[in-house]
Amino acid sequence: MIGVACCDRIELPGHLGPYFERLAPELDLRRPEEIDRPEEVSYMITFAPAPDAFVPYPNLRAVYSIGAGTDAILDCPSLPEGLPVYRVEDPDQAIQMAGFAAFHVLWHHRNMGQYLENRKTGHWARSITGLSPQARRIGVMGFGHMGRAVARGLVALGYPVAGYSRRMPTPVEPGVTHYTEDDLDAFLAQSDILINVLPLTPTTQGLIDEEMLAKLPEGAALIHLGRGGQVDEAAMTAALDRGQLSGASLDVFETEPLPPGHPLWTHPKVFVTPHVACIPEPQAVVLSIREMLLQHLAA
Amino acid sequence: MIGVACCDRIELPGHLGPYFERLAPELDLRRPEEIDRPEEVSYMITFAPAPDAFVPYPNLRAVYSIGAGTDAILDCPSLPEGLPVYRVEDPDQAIQMAGFAAFHVLWHHRNMGQYLENRKTGHWARSITGLSPQARRIGVMGFGHMGRAVARGLVALGYPVAGYSRRMPTPVEPGVTHYTEDDLDAFLAQSDILINVLPLTPTTQGLIDEEMLAKLPEGAALIHLGRGGQVDEAAMTAALDRGQLSGASLDVFETEPLPPGHPLWTHPKVFVTPHVACIPEPQAVVLSIREMLLQHLAA
Repeated sequence: MIGVACCDRIELPGHLGPYFERLAPELDLRRPEEIDRPEEVSYMITFAPAPDAFVPYPNLRAVYSIGAGTDAILDCPSLPEGLPVYRVEDPDQAIQMAGFAAFHVLWHHRNMGQYLENRKTGHWARSITGLSPQARRIGVMGFGHMGRAVARGLVALGYPVAGYSRRMPTPVEPGVTHYTEDDLDAFLAQSDILINVLPLTPTTQGLIDEEMLAKLPEGAALIHLGRGGQVDEAAMTAALDRGQLSGASLDVFETEPLPPGHPLWTHPKVFVTPHVACIPEPQAVVLSIREMLLQHLAA
Repeated sequence: MIGVACCDRIELPGHLGPYFERLAPELDLRRPEEIDRPEEVSYMITFAPAPDAFVPYPNLRAVYSIGAGTDAILDCPSLPEGLPVYRVEDPDQAIQMAGFAAFHVLWHHRNMGQYLENRKTGHWARSITGLSPQARRIGVMGFGHMGRAVARGLVALGYPVAGYSRRMPTPVEPGVTHYTEDDLDAFLAQSDILINVLPLTPTTQGLIDEEMLAKLPEGAALIHLGRGGQVDEAAMTAALDRGQLSGASLDVFETEPLPPGHPLWTHPKVFVTPHVACIPEPQAVVLSIREMLLQHLAA
């Protein structure tokens, strides 16, 4: 079976090719320029397809996102109606996210950036109260696969954790206070550290704006691990500058890569990471794609 | 009952006084200069007593460490033989330690310092493999109250965790591979990130030396949260400089405070924190002291 790797963001054949050859030789993954008869291509793998990515391939039976999000695929104008879109379901990816989120919770709660600053001057400055995890209430916005893993990790580290999701998740997560659609304001009002892991949908586009940030406790921190389009970066920067937010950890941005010289790079209250909160291991991606495709195309 | 606060390191009456007044008024905690009749003093609280701290008080019935370690008290030359030494038993302190250790594991594993460096130049550099917690084997050296909490937090975040203790701990900790005295070398050989939380004893003094560091996998990271005297700082610096260690997080030092200008402050592979991994909240300390003293002195 012939597949094509088309992605604007990640050089997939270089990244995954060797694993396909070794773990899924029957899938015959190729670059677009290696395809002689486009009508023979039965699947595509991608993360961020070009607008016309799907045009050459009339007989696709599935498209597979190598990330946890499928928004860039679903938004692609050339995506044929009814073509099934799959994504990696990899528990390892969620536990990567949990560790990454925990790191940034501790970064803000324990004021770790200040210690790094103090290294420069050799300043032994101890802040010796408020170190208990009970001193920060965490709000996890988005309670799917990712949100649940993030919440679970923070409960294990002793933090009081609230989860927000449109509907009550099933099952509820032990140790987590759940909030749903009608209680968004109450959820925000108790989130000393807000972690966003929502998927990008029309509802979540631009969701984290001036109004929402104003509903957080004064001096809250934002850990943004969802999708760039969800945060109004201008409003967030203003909230940082006036102290409504004490800090932000940003892994995703309106424009990615974040351009050199963009003010967020060097904002003193912002910890920028280049969209690396979780990236499935190539083996896991290839085995997951293989299982899905063989199952789906055999059906 | 009259008590005295004597500590070279921490200004205890300022830190804890208000909490004593509110939560344990019957304990009547005073500064040395507020004591008229030293023979009426029945307990002392301290963390690091001066060598002659115990001399003026002939009728002490207990001494209480406000930290998890009692080494500085046990080493004090004026400590009367047979005087019971107690320490804070505060589950909150262990969970603070667990979060602090988790932060530094992620710091090293996910190369977070590099992202901070890249901010300066606006360099969007993604490392996209090896992000799974399975990519780093953690060794927790010391498996009492603290080690267990640290191990538990890291198991929850998906890391493979080994624990080292002289004897097999009871109970064994789910998800942890336990090593004991005879297996120290095997434990070290599998510790990609070594976390030290041993108490300071004659056996652990200077334990982490050139020989021990050489038994770690090449490029291992060290997270040192025990006591300064346990690590040979010169040997550790040499191991960092030749790449045997890829990095170190140090919360405790041979000399504390770490003097301004000390080369560890600015070593590019070292994250210095000023002995803040865990500090019990004043409320917890006072309630714990109160419970212990009332129990002990009533017995």
